[in-house]
Amino acid sequence: MRQSQLFTKIKKEVPSGEVAKNAQLLLQAGFIHKEMAGVYSFLPLGLRVIENIKQIIRKELNAAGCQEMCMTALQSKAIWEKTNRWSDDVVDNWFKTTLKNGTELGLAFTHEESIAQIMSNYVHSYKDLPFFAYQFQTKFRNELRAKSGIMRGREFLMKDLYSFHTDKKAHDEFYEKMKEVYMEIFRTLGLGDNTYLTMSSGEPFSKYSFEFQTISEAGEDTILFDKEKKVAINKDDFSDQIFIDFGLNKDEYNFEEAKSIEIGDIYSLGTKYSEALNLTYADAEGKNHPVFMGSYGIGISRVMGTIVEVCNDKNGMIWPEEVAPFAVHLVSLCVEDSDVAKVDALYQKLVDAGVSVLYDDRDLRPGQKFAESDIIGIPHRVIMSKKTMQDNSVEYIDRKAGNTEFLTADDVVRLTASWQSS
Amino acid sequence: MRQSQLFTKIKKEVPSGEVAKNAQLLLQAGFIHKEMAGVYSFLPLGLRVIENIKQIIRKELNAAGCQEMCMTALQSKAIWEKTNRWSDDVVDNWFKTTLKNGTELGLAFTHEESIAQIMSNYVHSYKDLPFFAYQFQTKFRNELRAKSGIMRGREFLMKDLYSFHTDKKAHDEFYEKMKEVYMEIFRTLGLGDNTYLTMSSGEPFSKYSFEFQTISEAGEDTILFDKEKKVAINKDDFSDQIFIDFGLNKDEYNFEEAKSIEIGDIYSLGTKYSEALNLTYADAEGKNHPVFMGSYGIGISRVMGTIVEVCNDKNGMIWPEEVAPFAVHLVSLCVEDSDVAKVDALYQKLVDAGVSVLYDDRDLRPGQKFAESDIIGIPHRVIMSKKTMQDNSVEYIDRKAGNTEFLTADDVVRLTASWQSS
Repeated sequence: MRQSQLFTKIKKEVPSGEVAKNAQLLLQAGFIHKEMAGVYSFLPLGLRVIENIKQIIRKELNAAGCQEMCMTALQSKAIWEKTNRWSDDVVDNWFKTTLKNGTELGLAFTHEESIAQIMSNYVHSYKDLPFFAYQFQTKFRNELRAKSGIMRGREFLMKDLYSFHTDKKAHDEFYEKMKEVYMEIFRTLGLGDNTYLTMSSGEPFSKYSFEFQTISEAGEDTILFDKEKKVAINKDDFSDQIFIDFGLNKDEYNFEEAKSIEIGDIYSLGTKYSEALNLTYADAEGKNHPVFMGSYGIGISRVMGTIVEVCNDKNGMIWPEEVAPFAVHLVSLCVEDSDVAKVDALYQKLVDAGVSVLYDDRDLRPGQKFAESDIIGIPHRVIMSKKTMQDNSVEYIDRKAGNTEFLTADDVVRLTASWQSS
Repeated sequence: MRQSQLFTKIKKEVPSGEVAKNAQLLLQAGFIHKEMAGVYSFLPLGLRVIENIKQIIRKELNAAGCQEMCMTALQSKAIWEKTNRWSDDVVDNWFKTTLKNGTELGLAFTHEESIAQIMSNYVHSYKDLPFFAYQFQTKFRNELRAKSGIMRGREFLMKDLYSFHTDKKAHDEFYEKMKEVYMEIFRTLGLGDNTYLTMSSGEPFSKYSFEFQTISEAGEDTILFDKEKKVAINKDDFSDQIFIDFGLNKDEYNFEEAKSIEIGDIYSLGTKYSEALNLTYADAEGKNHPVFMGSYGIGISRVMGTIVEVCNDKNGMIWPEEVAPFAVHLVSLCVEDSDVAKVDALYQKLVDAGVSVLYDDRDLRPGQKFAESDIIGIPHRVIMSKKTMQDNSVEYIDRKAGNTEFLTADDVVRLTASWQSS
C-alpha cells in the first residue's frame, strides 16, 4: 500500500509512560494504540503482523489435523462452578459482569470449561475420539499490574488448542507430536534460535508440563538451559528430582541462566474437566470413561511483543520475513514526474507479482524516510532516487544485515519471489 | 476435510428452546453452539462461513481504499463520558466490569468514541484526510431479550467502518460510493435479490440514514418497497415528508409491505464525536475544524443468520456458493476397498485443484447421509457408489435446484474450477 494513505504516522520520540521496549517501539511506529494499561488496539501495521502470526500457526495446526472454531467471551457461572473455578477466591483474575436480570457472567480468561461442555454434546463413543480443536480468541484477565506492554495484557489474543483422547497413552502420543509442531511454528516465526522447550511444573493439572521459553531480558521467567543439547528447565522447578523423573543425568549438561518469555505451554489436563463436565465416552464394551484432555497455548499478542524484544537494534524493529507487515519497503526519493513514474511502475510490478509492499511515496526528507523505515523494520528496503536511476539501478538494503547492494529493478522483482508474498 | 474427522455431528431433531429458524438449523447442523441466550460459539462449519463472509467484505473494502485495524472490547469511562454515552440511563445495553482497583470499565457495544480518540493522535492537517478504517470485532450488548438466534446477540461479530473527512461534501461523496460497495457485497453474499437500500431516520446523528434491509419473515423491521424501482423506506419513517426531502414523487411507486432484517446501515456522524474527542484538523490557512465522520456497519453473524433464514427449504440450509463452508460435499456410498480408493482419488484430485471439499467417508446408511447432506446445505453434491462406478460415472446434485446429473469424475474436476475454491 501507499504510505501516504496509511493513517498512522511514526512518532519522533519513544512514548513516555511505557517501560516495556515492545510497547515503546510498537507505539512509536503506530502498530498499536494503548487504550489503557494492558489493553491495546491493533492498528493496520500491527494487525498485519498479528494476521501473519495467526496464519503460520493455523497452517501448522491444520496440517496436524486440528479443527478451528471460536468460543465466546461471555461465560455462565454454572459451568465454572462445576470445576470450582468461578469464585474470585480461587481464580483471582476474573472480569465479571451482569445481565439485565441480575445474572452474573464472567469474561473468559481461558476455555477448558467451555470446550469440555461443548464437546459433551458430540462425544459418545470411543469412535468419536481422538480429535483436536483450537481457536484464536480474545482472553480477558484482570491483572493487578500490567507493565509488560503487549506481553501480559488484560485483553489479549491467544491461540488455545485442546485435544481429546480415550486414555493417557493416546494423549501422550499427540502431546509428543505437538512439541515438534510447536518448535516448527516458533522456527517459522523467527524465534527458533532463542526458544527452548522447557521442563516445568505441571500444577495444578499434572506433575510436569512443558513451556516454550524465549530468552530475553524482558522476560518475567528465568530458565536454566543447555545451548548445545537444547535442554531447559524453569528455574522455579530446577531440582535433582526433575532429572530423576525425566531420566536425565544432570552432570551431562552445561546450564546457563537467563531471563525468558513464556510464549507457549502444553499441559496434560487429564480428566479434571471431563469428569466435572460429564464429558465421557463408552468403550467397545459399552462402559463409560471420562475423556483424557490436553491443552496447548500460544499467546499471539505476546509472540508479537517477544519478536519485537528479540529482533531490534538501536534504530528500531527488525521483523522476520514471515511475520513482517510488508515484505518490501519501497522508498522513493524521486520528485520529478518522470522519475516518480518509474517508482510507480516497480511498485505495480511487485504488487502484480503478489509481493506485499509498503510504498513510501510521501514528500519528506530522505533522512526522515530512512529513520522511519528503520523504526518500522520491514526486512527488505528498496530505494529509488534520481541518482540510482542515472545508473539504471536501485539501492537494496537488508534491514537486518544492514548491507547495501545496487540492483536492477528486474533483479528486485526476481529476488522478491523468494520473499514473503501476501 | 474428511467428515469422519469432523468433531461435530448432525442432530436428528431440531433443538428445542429456539424459536428462530436460523438458530434451529445452525444448531442442528453443528455450525454453532449456544452458550446462553444471544451468545453462540462458532464450531468448525460455522466458522468457515463466518470467515468467508469476512473475506468477501474485506476484499471489497480494501479495494475501496479502506484500512483494517482492530480495537478493544474493554473501554475507559473517561472517553465515553465526553460524549455523554457512559451513563446506563443514556445507553441501556452496556455490559460493565471493574478493574482490581475499582476502576469501572465498559465492554464496547460500538466504537465511535474509541476510534475518534485514536485518530486524534494521527490527524493534524487537512493533508491527513480523508481516510477510512474498519474492523471485524466482537460487540457486547446487554439486550433485555435475545430470541432471534444469531441475529440479535449479546455477543456478536460486526464489521464497522468509519470514514474521516474535511467536510460534509467530501463525506457525502464517500457515503454515496459506499452505498454501491455495500450492495455489491450483499450481491456477492447471495442476498442481492432480497436486499433493499432503505431510507430511514438518521437519529440521533442526522435527519436520515440508509439501512440495508433483507426481506424475511424473521425480520424485526418492516419496510415498504418497490420491487422494480428498488426503492424502499422503513415503515417507521414512511411519511409524505420523506418523499419531499428526497425529491421523489410518491405516486410513481408501487409499494409492498414486508418484514425485513437490517443487515447493514450507513450513518453520517457529522462532527458529534470529533468535537467531543478533540479530533480536529488545521486547514490550509492553519484554522482548526472538527473532522467530519461517517459510520458504516454490517452485522457479520447477523448476515450468517439472514442467509440461513432466506436460503433454506424443508430439508435444511442451502448455502450460496460464495459463503458455503465447503464448495463440494463428496458423499461416498462405497464399502469395498477398491471402490473407496476411487473416491479417495477424486477427493485428492479436488483438494489438489484447490477446491474445498467435505468428504463424507463415514460408514452410515445412504438415507442418513443424504438427509444430513441436505441439512448442512453445501451447494454441490457428488455421490459415488458401486452402481455409479459400474457406469463409470458419478451422481451430481445441485442442492438448490435439486436436479441430478450423471458425470464423469473428470467432468466434476473441470466443473469445480468455476466453483468456490478455498
